[in-house]
Amino acid sequence: MDGIRNICDRPKNTNIKWSLPAVCFVWQLSMIILFGVFVRYNEESDTHWVDYRKENNITSDIENDYYFRYPSFQDVHVMIFVGFGFLMTFLKRYSFGAVGFNFLVAAFGIQWALLMQGWFHSLDYTDGKIKIGIENLINADFCVAGCLIAYGAVLGKVSPVQLLVMTLFGVTLFAVEEYIILNVLHAKDAGGSMVIHTFGAYYGLSISWVLYRPNLDKSKHLNGSVYHSDVFAMIGTLFLWMFWPSFNSAIADHGDGQHRAAINTYLALASTVLTTVAMSSLFEKTGKLDMVHIQNSTLAGGVAVGTAAEFMLSPYGSLIVGFFCGIISTLGYIYFSPFLEEKLKIQDTCGIHNLHAMPGVIGGIVGAISAAAATNTVYGDLGLENTFDFTGPFAKRVPTIQGGYQAAGLCVALCFGIGGGIFVGLVLKLPIWGDPADENCFDDEIYWEVRQTCIKATQLKIHSDS
Amino acid sequence: MDGIRNICDRPKNTNIKWSLPAVCFVWQLSMIILFGVFVRYNEESDTHWVDYRKENNITSDIENDYYFRYPSFQDVHVMIFVGFGFLMTFLKRYSFGAVGFNFLVAAFGIQWALLMQGWFHSLDYTDGKIKIGIENLINADFCVAGCLIAYGAVLGKVSPVQLLVMTLFGVTLFAVEEYIILNVLHAKDAGGSMVIHTFGAYYGLSISWVLYRPNLDKSKHLNGSVYHSDVFAMIGTLFLWMFWPSFNSAIADHGDGQHRAAINTYLALASTVLTTVAMSSLFEKTGKLDMVHIQNSTLAGGVAVGTAAEFMLSPYGSLIVGFFCGIISTLGYIYFSPFLEEKLKIQDTCGIHNLHAMPGVIGGIVGAISAAAATNTVYGDLGLENTFDFTGPFAKRVPTIQGGYQAAGLCVALCFGIGGGIFVGLVLKLPIWGDPADENCFDDEIYWEVRQTCIKATQLKIHSDS
Amino acid sequence: MDGIRNICDRPKNTNIKWSLPAVCFVWQLSMIILFGVFVRYNEESDTHWVDYRKENNITSDIENDYYFRYPSFQDVHVMIFVGFGFLMTFLKRYSFGAVGFNFLVAAFGIQWALLMQGWFHSLDYTDGKIKIGIENLINADFCVAGCLIAYGAVLGKVSPVQLLVMTLFGVTLFAVEEYIILNVLHAKDAGGSMVIHTFGAYYGLSISWVLYRPNLDKSKHLNGSVYHSDVFAMIGTLFLWMFWPSFNSAIADHGDGQHRAAINTYLALASTVLTTVAMSSLFEKTGKLDMVHIQNSTLAGGVAVGTAAEFMLSPYGSLIVGFFCGIISTLGYIYFSPFLEEKLKIQDTCGIHNLHAMPGVIGGIVGAISAAAATNTVYGDLGLENTFDFTGPFAKRVPTIQGGYQAAGLCVALCFGIGGGIFVGLVLKLPIWGDPADENCFDDEIYWEVRQTCIKATQLKIHSDS
Repeated sequence: MDGIRNICDRPKNTNIKWSLPAVCFVWQLSMIILFGVFVRYNEESDTHWVDYRKENNITSDIENDYYFRYPSFQDVHVMIFVGFGFLMTFLKRYSFGAVGFNFLVAAFGIQWALLMQGWFHSLDYTDGKIKIGIENLINADFCVAGCLIAYGAVLGKVSPVQLLVMTLFGVTLFAVEEYIILNVLHAKDAGGSMVIHTFGAYYGLSISWVLYRPNLDKSKHLNGSVYHSDVFAMIGTLFLWMFWPSFNSAIADHGDGQHRAAINTYLALASTVLTTVAMSSLFEKTGKLDMVHIQNSTLAGGVAVGTAAEFMLSPYGSLIVGFFCGIISTLGYIYFSPFLEEKLKIQDTCGIHNLHAMPGVIGGIVGAISAAAATNTVYGDLGLENTFDFTGPFAKRVPTIQGGYQAAGLCVALCFGIGGGIFVGLVLKLPIWGDPADENCFDDEIYWEVRQTCIKATQLKIHSDS
Repeated sequence: MDGIRNICDRPKNTNIKWSLPAVCFVWQLSMIILFGVFVRYNEESDTHWVDYRKENNITSDIENDYYFRYPSFQDVHVMIFVGFGFLMTFLKRYSFGAVGFNFLVAAFGIQWALLMQGWFHSLDYTDGKIKIGIENLINADFCVAGCLIAYGAVLGKVSPVQLLVMTLFGVTLFAVEEYIILNVLHAKDAGGSMVIHTFGAYYGLSISWVLYRPNLDKSKHLNGSVYHSDVFAMIGTLFLWMFWPSFNSAIADHGDGQHRAAINTYLALASTVLTTVAMSSLFEKTGKLDMVHIQNSTLAGGVAVGTAAEFMLSPYGSLIVGFFCGIISTLGYIYFSPFLEEKLKIQDTCGIHNLHAMPGVIGGIVGAISAAAATNTVYGDLGLENTFDFTGPFAKRVPTIQGGYQAAGLCVALCFGIGGGIFVGLVLKLPIWGDPADENCFDDEIYWEVRQTCIKATQLKIHSDS
Repeated sequence: MDGIRNICDRPKNTNIKWSLPAVCFVWQLSMIILFGVFVRYNEESDTHWVDYRKENNITSDIENDYYFRYPSFQDVHVMIFVGFGFLMTFLKRYSFGAVGFNFLVAAFGIQWALLMQGWFHSLDYTDGKIKIGIENLINADFCVAGCLIAYGAVLGKVSPVQLLVMTLFGVTLFAVEEYIILNVLHAKDAGGSMVIHTFGAYYGLSISWVLYRPNLDKSKHLNGSVYHSDVFAMIGTLFLWMFWPSFNSAIADHGDGQHRAAINTYLALASTVLTTVAMSSLFEKTGKLDMVHIQNSTLAGGVAVGTAAEFMLSPYGSLIVGFFCGIISTLGYIYFSPFLEEKLKIQDTCGIHNLHAMPGVIGGIVGAISAAAATNTVYGDLGLENTFDFTGPFAKRVPTIQGGYQAAGLCVALCFGIGGGIFVGLVLKLPIWGDPADENCFDDEIYWEVRQTCIKATQLKIHSDS
């Protein structure tokens, strides 16, 4: 690793006047061409829906999948753009980069995800076209979530061009691992504990490991929050927290599946808040609370209940999952993040290891256990079949076996995350992407026109005072 | 009162390193145990829904209550966590406490509310279990709203442990008064003018009265806003304002009930904005507007139309209610709040008396009058029966009688609010909860790690300048 | 023009202590009276719905239009109040005015719009009453959007009384042009590219032209952003961006119409983000991004796909529209806005010409072309009839003719915008409305009690430093 690092250590040029426009234009044009060749409306968003309704004896327009999923879709959409975007605004001088690059990355990622996921999941073999509807839009948002989680690890240390490259590869890897986990292994993962969170977090952490900056403390004075930036970050936290029930239920089964996923997530998240507060208070002097924990660890329960949200986890089961995740995630911020940085050389700006990686793995394990423990008594015969889709080629699978496949799915997510992250990290080491020097990390001035000098002047003044 | 006050006047110790974690852990563990014993999915969120559908000839999954109520639920959820949370961020140095403690209190409250309301409303007597679904989640959010309203009165003057105690008792009292009002008296209160707002506001005001701090002006310099904190507060105001139609319609009857409640609330709120602006301008020198009024009084119409939102209040009726509430609420901020503080010794940080108490009482009265005035001509025979649930033991009730019971409901809410508040206030007087000294009120530094000193330094500097 | 300008140039009196309250009270009272005379619930929000259901063999409450449209309605509502409101908070000292006056104007406008649009579209000729339901609420929000777009052009330069006058006339003009375009010409415009954006933008630009202030650079120091105000503005941008699919689909046809409109808008907006970033980077030194472009031009694709969102524009068609709009809108900010101000004497504070006017016109043209190009092969016979409502008196219309009427609709929107704007601008020139002097523009102190002096002191200090 060190060898490659040295090769890439040259004076940094952060001028992206040609690379960023070039990447944006070329990729967007490619999207248009690929969409032109491949993407069409599905039968529920096409004007032929009126004929489809008649053929299939659908009595009312309200049974269009749009009405089952649109409210959840919009909530997920808010989580992606406002939730992730504002959660990362906590840094004192990187709010533009947080919310702006999040915006850019997500806008590209959803298009690429529609294609990649489309080829794997929505290809109509009769005409070779991808047929999209509301569920594809949700899945594209989900796919991008993985990349935005990864962004959290490298926040402030990479250029927008690097982020776009990271997203291009991230979405591609995501679509493949998702296909293996959901279709080949036939594991269930409604809220994406494995597919989204475990993959995304280890993908980002591996990239951050490859891109390790030994002299990052040169920009240490900017690697922290100010009062108002912490309040902005709470906008992100709360929209993620509130809409997480929609995230975990968005692509769950119609009817009881979506209903149950929402309840389980609601409860797990509530429980997490209390244990996060408890741990935060317990480990700070005089019991004060730390905004970092409140902003992040309160969300761990939603991650960890992702896989099992659809299952008969039962309300108290959800509370238990949330309970432990609040504790583990907060301890992660207190003990594990410093360890990661000092010993493992992983600089994790937002602490995604504590918010997504550990809770994601827990979520995968909880999912495997609760799948393996499923019984006809609890689920009912039809309920069991519906919940785990024991139909077609999987008609003979039983819950215990399903549990094994769930665990296998978790391993796949881990492998893709770590392996893919190392590969992409090496690509991003190339000294052509315009990443900032160590002393310019966490500073919006590098990639943004920051017009006013008011606040900067104040800050400088005060820094010299203090 | 004064005697007890003196007993409790000792030097304050705000160290909550043990009390806060202890309360969080013990209560959360209790929740897990109680949920384990009592709480299960209802037939619409259970995997047996597929069987239930068949038995009850339900033709489509879309008729699961989830699809009737989930969009409103998420809107209510946003009101609770972002609406109430950000509305209270207006103080210059208490934004963490506003949004953070709001988060903690609500996360605990919804769990306890699911139990308390469950025992009263959703207990399945065949197996002694509480069966929960989407409507329970909404009701839990509603229940917590009462406690968050009360928080507004004591904002900045209590410790998080006190808030949790306040919520424990508040939710308990709420569930009992709600049962009496809705089930025993069979009053209607879709938007909770009585059950939520009147109760919550008088609960908070009574607590604040018992906890009166004669020397609160020691922290007067922090009891106000700065420019950006007022903008943050507008996030809260607007999300409350926009989603209030969802609040008042969330648990209304399917179909026309929800539809009408949304329309009435939309109109009442629009009307309130204009009269609030008018009054604010009229009473300030040179007609300037006051952010306090815009942030708060604009919401009064939503409170006041809560009970009658489901009724045939008619569009102009809603406008009239909003019209007067904007006037009364703004006048409350101008004249009544100072009077409350000086004469009645009630320190009401957010002015909940003007935003929730008075409009809540008005809402109860409007509800009683419009119920009493209901006729078969306007409602239709079936419509009247459906709207007021004149079925079962109440099949012979007529509108005029219903009006009387509505009025009785308002009295119950008032009694529970005031009585409960005084009792809980006395509990909170005990010198064990870690509340701040008079000179440390409205200051996040007491309960939060506030890392940067930048803005503080600036403020101090400027305070000495001016 | 200059003659009238001179007549009106007297020392400015910004005291609105009587005019603002008078306008608010009188107009609100008028609303109450007019609603009392004219507005009633429609059959889906009336208690007689239960009878209506039976008569029309509607099997379930879920087929009430409320459930088709409420989620979109709430998203549109958020766009109007938070989206438009916060988008305009970017100015360093006009955030109160941006979000507060936006609130006032919209709250009045939706009431007046319910009446105006009601008379044209929802009048029940049997009893002379306007019957309102959820679709009317959405349309009222849409109507107000036109006026809020216009507000963007005059932001910081007008008094709240002027804004209310502007809204009174704006809503009236909107209702008439909407009637001509949608009913007389029978053009389709689900997302309002023509009806809302083109009209609103040219209305505002014409007003701004008439109100031209040659000495506006006296308040130049306030006509810009600070770091945190730019982050606040991103809240507005993102909520507009995320919920735009709801905007364009809110009143589209049930089923595939809404579904398709959401997909098209989602794609167009994603595409716009990439080309906006590309152009912004390409035209700034060292490739830095400009927040003004990110905040505004990223939304242009949503505007431009408004008319055709419902049509079979196809996914790649949407991407193409978004692609070009991002480019054109960003170029508009770089080249066209200075030209407008210097040559055409149009001062456009928010750059609505780039965000709404040009994309709106493009949207109208795209709509006309895609309507003219519609074929039975692509749409299906029934699909074509449903999408373009070729029923009743329009049963014999064919797509090519429809394209012509669409183009005619665009011209009507332009004429009403420009003509109406000039007329209303002249009305607003009267020296009775309390508008600010040139040196007091963009300053909240004129119309708001701004309590704290902290930040002001800092700013002044720093201004003298720099």
